Amino acid sequence: MKKIRVGVAGYGTIGQRLADGVALQGDMELVGVADLAPTLAIRALKEKGMPYKLFLVEGADKSKFDALDIPVSGMFDDLIKNVDIMLDSSPGGVGIKNKELYEKAGVKAVFQGGEKNSVADVFFHGYANYEKGVGKDYLKLTSCNTTGLIRSVDCLDREFGIDRVAITIIRRVADPGDYHRGLTNALQIDKAPSHQAVDLMTIMPHVEATGILVHTPVTHGHIITVVAHGKQKITKEMALAAFQKHPRIRVVSIDEGFLGNASLFKYARDLGNARGDMYEIGLWSDSIVETGDEIMYAINIPQESVTIPETMDAIRAACNMQTTREEGTSVTNKYLKIGKWKAEEQ
Amino acid sequence: MKKIRVGVAGYGTIGQRLADGVALQGDMELVGVADLAPTLAIRALKEKGMPYKLFLVEGADKSKFDALDIPVSGMFDDLIKNVDIMLDSSPGGVGIKNKELYEKAGVKAVFQGGEKNSVADVFFHGYANYEKGVGKDYLKLTSCNTTGLIRSVDCLDREFGIDRVAITIIRRVADPGDYHRGLTNALQIDKAPSHQAVDLMTIMPHVEATGILVHTPVTHGHIITVVAHGKQKITKEMALAAFQKHPRIRVVSIDEGFLGNASLFKYARDLGNARGDMYEIGLWSDSIVETGDEIMYAINIPQESVTIPETMDAIRAACNMQTTREEGTSVTNKYLKIGKWKAEEQ
Amino acid sequence: MKKIRVGVAGYGTIGQRLADGVALQGDMELVGVADLAPTLAIRALKEKGMPYKLFLVEGADKSKFDALDIPVSGMFDDLIKNVDIMLDSSPGGVGIKNKELYEKAGVKAVFQGGEKNSVADVFFHGYANYEKGVGKDYLKLTSCNTTGLIRSVDCLDREFGIDRVAITIIRRVADPGDYHRGLTNALQIDKAPSHQAVDLMTIMPHVEATGILVHTPVTHGHIITVVAHGKQKITKEMALAAFQKHPRIRVVSIDEGFLGNASLFKYARDLGNARGDMYEIGLWSDSIVETGDEIMYAINIPQESVTIPETMDAIRAACNMQTTREEGTSVTNKYLKIGKWKAEEQ
Amino acid sequence: MKKIRVGVAGYGTIGQRLADGVALQGDMELVGVADLAPTLAIRALKEKGMPYKLFLVEGADKSKFDALDIPVSGMFDDLIKNVDIMLDSSPGGVGIKNKELYEKAGVKAVFQGGEKNSVADVFFHGYANYEKGVGKDYLKLTSCNTTGLIRSVDCLDREFGIDRVAITIIRRVADPGDYHRGLTNALQIDKAPSHQAVDLMTIMPHVEATGILVHTPVTHGHIITVVAHGKQKITKEMALAAFQKHPRIRVVSIDEGFLGNASLFKYARDLGNARGDMYEIGLWSDSIVETGDEIMYAINIPQESVTIPETMDAIRAACNMQTTREEGTSVTNKYLKIGKWKAEEQ
Repeated sequence: MKKIRVGVAGYGTIGQRLADGVALQGDMELVGVADLAPTLAIRALKEKGMPYKLFLVEGADKSKFDALDIPVSGMFDDLIKNVDIMLDSSPGGVGIKNKELYEKAGVKAVFQGGEKNSVADVFFHGYANYEKGVGKDYLKLTSCNTTGLIRSVDCLDREFGIDRVAITIIRRVADPGDYHRGLTNALQIDKAPSHQAVDLMTIMPHVEATGILVHTPVTHGHIITVVAHGKQKITKEMALAAFQKHPRIRVVSIDEGFLGNASLFKYARDLGNARGDMYEIGLWSDSIVETGDEIMYAINIPQESVTIPETMDAIRAACNMQTTREEGTSVTNKYLKIGKWKAEEQ
Repeated sequence: MKKIRVGVAGYGTIGQRLADGVALQGDMELVGVADLAPTLAIRALKEKGMPYKLFLVEGADKSKFDALDIPVSGMFDDLIKNVDIMLDSSPGGVGIKNKELYEKAGVKAVFQGGEKNSVADVFFHGYANYEKGVGKDYLKLTSCNTTGLIRSVDCLDREFGIDRVAITIIRRVADPGDYHRGLTNALQIDKAPSHQAVDLMTIMPHVEATGILVHTPVTHGHIITVVAHGKQKITKEMALAAFQKHPRIRVVSIDEGFLGNASLFKYARDLGNARGDMYEIGLWSDSIVETGDEIMYAINIPQESVTIPETMDAIRAACNMQTTREEGTSVTNKYLKIGKWKAEEQ
Repeated sequence: MKKIRVGVAGYGTIGQRLADGVALQGDMELVGVADLAPTLAIRALKEKGMPYKLFLVEGADKSKFDALDIPVSGMFDDLIKNVDIMLDSSPGGVGIKNKELYEKAGVKAVFQGGEKNSVADVFFHGYANYEKGVGKDYLKLTSCNTTGLIRSVDCLDREFGIDRVAITIIRRVADPGDYHRGLTNALQIDKAPSHQAVDLMTIMPHVEATGILVHTPVTHGHIITVVAHGKQKITKEMALAAFQKHPRIRVVSIDEGFLGNASLFKYARDLGNARGDMYEIGLWSDSIVETGDEIMYAINIPQESVTIPETMDAIRAACNMQTTREEGTSVTNKYLKIGKWKAEEQ
Repeated sequence: MKKIRVGVAGYGTIGQRLADGVALQGDMELVGVADLAPTLAIRALKEKGMPYKLFLVEGADKSKFDALDIPVSGMFDDLIKNVDIMLDSSPGGVGIKNKELYEKAGVKAVFQGGEKNSVADVFFHGYANYEKGVGKDYLKLTSCNTTGLIRSVDCLDREFGIDRVAITIIRRVADPGDYHRGLTNALQIDKAPSHQAVDLMTIMPHVEATGILVHTPVTHGHIITVVAHGKQKITKEMALAAFQKHPRIRVVSIDEGFLGNASLFKYARDLGNARGDMYEIGLWSDSIVETGDEIMYAINIPQESVTIPETMDAIRAACNMQTTREEGTSVTNKYLKIGKWKAEEQ
């Protein structure tokens, strides 16, 4: 079977990981990545021997790349015309402009969470609404928090039915290595409801959601607490069993040594995962508590890498590679080795 | 009328503020404070010219105080026998030992949140169960988070009836100046349910409560999100109106410039409040959201000073100074100038 | 004697403290402060009952102040024409524009460190070059780090002669309450030499200076290490004796409990200092070490308040209130109660 | 040639990296690692499929490992009797006890910086005193800061002669994932001189050294500023040329995007380095400044991984694998691919 040809626009925190993710998919070919300037990410690509071809977007100064002996394989157009689908992880607002180029070239595209919903035909989540993306040209992924949050809510919803959630997002304020944003000894609150609650309702329209978001001065993963109202009484045991079956949810506990978001980052590094990344969200079994007809729990969102699997799902849906949620997500999981440890344990 | 004579055991973060609080009460007399070693707090007392008399607890090395020319007014016993009531803000576990001395001397005492509930006859909150403390000998205050949390839940409960709350505590991990504890670039989760939820149920037994606590590496105030289930539908406007009437709740907004816990600390400093402290909890009007028959909102807990007013209330209750919640809290508020700005605004 | 009439432009972190500082000077009158918008600082002024008159700078929307019932005493011009000297703590770049108004009105001005040196006739430091500012119209203060650094270097220089310093500035990256800047889990290095080393050479041209600055994610005071080369061998004892005599240097030690910058902030709060501020720099006696013909030591810079005394000195110099360094600084010290504790100890 | 058989005691932050480092050496065999409890590091080893054999130290509860299906290959003694040399990265104070076992079994050992110098025959640094370790039985590595610091000072010393250094260590206070130590919004100063300065003098006795250490609340690498006095005038160009030739020094610049310690961590992650580690120290070319006959510069110490290469050197020296500094370090560098990018660039 012919491999689906994929390009990546924007080789930043997300773009690098998208490229790595595509390169791992046995049925996809990474044609190349495009960027504007010789950032640290591009310099690292050079130092690694250019495993991916580099293309320059409009406005790039090629002489800067030449001065650093960084091989350039062409311009953005050269990349676009050689792919079936683009993954656009450009800075927010650039994707909508790039879309014109994609349309002209007749290529599909998946946009990241920073773009407005209107950029796409479908606001997409691999587990919650895969089928809506099948065969579509333009998909937009949910943001990192929403992606992880929906994994857990969709998981409970399919098993037991969920009709209402109230979330508290304890948001990491910067990624490791960020110097263009940060917060020092301060918590910062956003106006409620948080966009993640609103986005959840767009993806899962039968659920009523609200939430409050507080920024915290850390870099290794958001923590979200979820108060979910079930259509039936959901016990701790019922929730735990459902979460443990989900390939993209890693159930952990404080007793094992997972004391917080930094433990999960450390563990991913110790696993030897590239960049210390993790595709799964963490879910603390000892955070699950019942109250009335509600269940409450806490999850950890590895913000740099959590959307990569769902973006692979999006390619599969858009390009008709697999037409059902079960097939699409399981092929992605296989290539990214997600849930391997879980399967082996069982 | 004869003033109630008060002593303070433990001149640390809380003890210093208790002493300052008592000194402001027109119907109380601060007999003195007791501590073990010439800490920075004691050195500051000396540099200020010893506005409070200092007594030494057992185990103190008087020669260390002498070497620093710090006047000592006597031993712990000398303090105890000259007071009607002791405020015990000793390190956790010491209060229960001190209680023996208090019992022997026949003086009442109010313990802080670090002691076990069993140290006291009543687990006390000025607004939620004032009457239970009236005439009692030994009271234990709720901890800082619980004190502030209950203010807001009790406020809604008295107006509309509350039967269930689910809380997320975003906890500051250290006080400014702390070097004996801290967290660096990490969120840390505790086993659920948090003790604050459990404590709330002890004080307000008709409310079912649960919650998750996450420690964050900041020093200026906890933030708690509350999902409260009303006996009737509570709208944002209803909740806001109730909160605005409460003397110990300061309703603020992001648009005014209150972006988070650090804004409130800055504001208290700019107000000229001693130590940059604030007695009120902050409550963000733009955090209040409705979902189903629940109302959600976020509050800020100034951990160093929030329990001071309720401790003054406790003295009033225990010593029969005022026998009703309305009288007791309003006299405390008057002397601490709590709600003055609010009253003037109206 | 007629009091010198002073106005303050820009009621932010520095402006608030300048106003408070002027208000404490028995021989000065604070005519008022000017600002653009109803910030938290202005709201706090209102809540305190408007101890200072407020004037609006050009571009201010008076209706916003009216809506909050904040009394406005006039426009910026009304302030300027009623003062002898303006303290300009406007955001960087605004001072140079304001200068035109000051010149037109024939009033003197002292600018803060954010402006370019060319804004002023003299780049000023109360201890290092007081006489240069005497009778001058426009003075610019050294920045917070440079002000504190020069106090210590000038102190050694006058006693023993210093001809070379190499400094390392461990810079706090934001003030408490700042949300417009910050750094999370990162150290950030500036290109060397740091401007503070360059500025020191401008003020003390007989000293060769260089330095490296590293930003750190904390809010309570910079720490600077100084490697100073003496014209003669300076022992630890010699340096310590000199530092202990300086009214604006507070010699502290780790053994006393001063473990770092946060201890000094805590101590200032415990002293009851307004806003928890301190005018003195801290200097750790147990950081002083000798090597070859060099002496090394570490100081703490309370960035929000350290320049206030030297700005008061600047007023005294510019307005010919005192014409010598000894007289000018000692009157400032008297009114700000600087060195009082030191004097009493001796 | 028979491979040197190596064991690792203590599979924590350093132990894991030592094991990985040994596994990369073509002329060494990693016999196994030993630890006490099923920590996250051990759990990750299990999830990776046990690439290294695990042995249990005395006091370990085997049933805990069995419960988790973690294969155990034997007890500590079984490991020791099958190796030529042990790398001991046990918690501080345990190594000295383990030494008795090593002596009894007649195996050599290299201890990490946490042990007292007296544990070993030689206090060792691969570049500064390799020959002193040749053939010795017990070596102790310099700590992470000292290892990186000495690389740079030794580099200048061999080229130009250095007789005096004054250092300022801006120390990261915890590793990513640490929850047992931390600091929140505070800088903490140690008594001077710092042990790193003292240790440098032990390794390089012809250099006079002093220094001040300040702890900062970050996790990604220490930054040290060095003021070095040359026997001759060292210009920026001379220093830069020397640093650029050193395989274990990576010269970077702010203009390239290396804004601080977090940039270097990000870059190592982007390079695909295991755990996001880097063996080289970073040295900012734009931090190098001259003053008088001194040169000043700043380096970055990746604390988790910086001692790994010098520990490999220590094995080579102790086991007589290579008898000169040039040979020993260059074989280590070859296997760890240190300086590869540098060689290719030239």
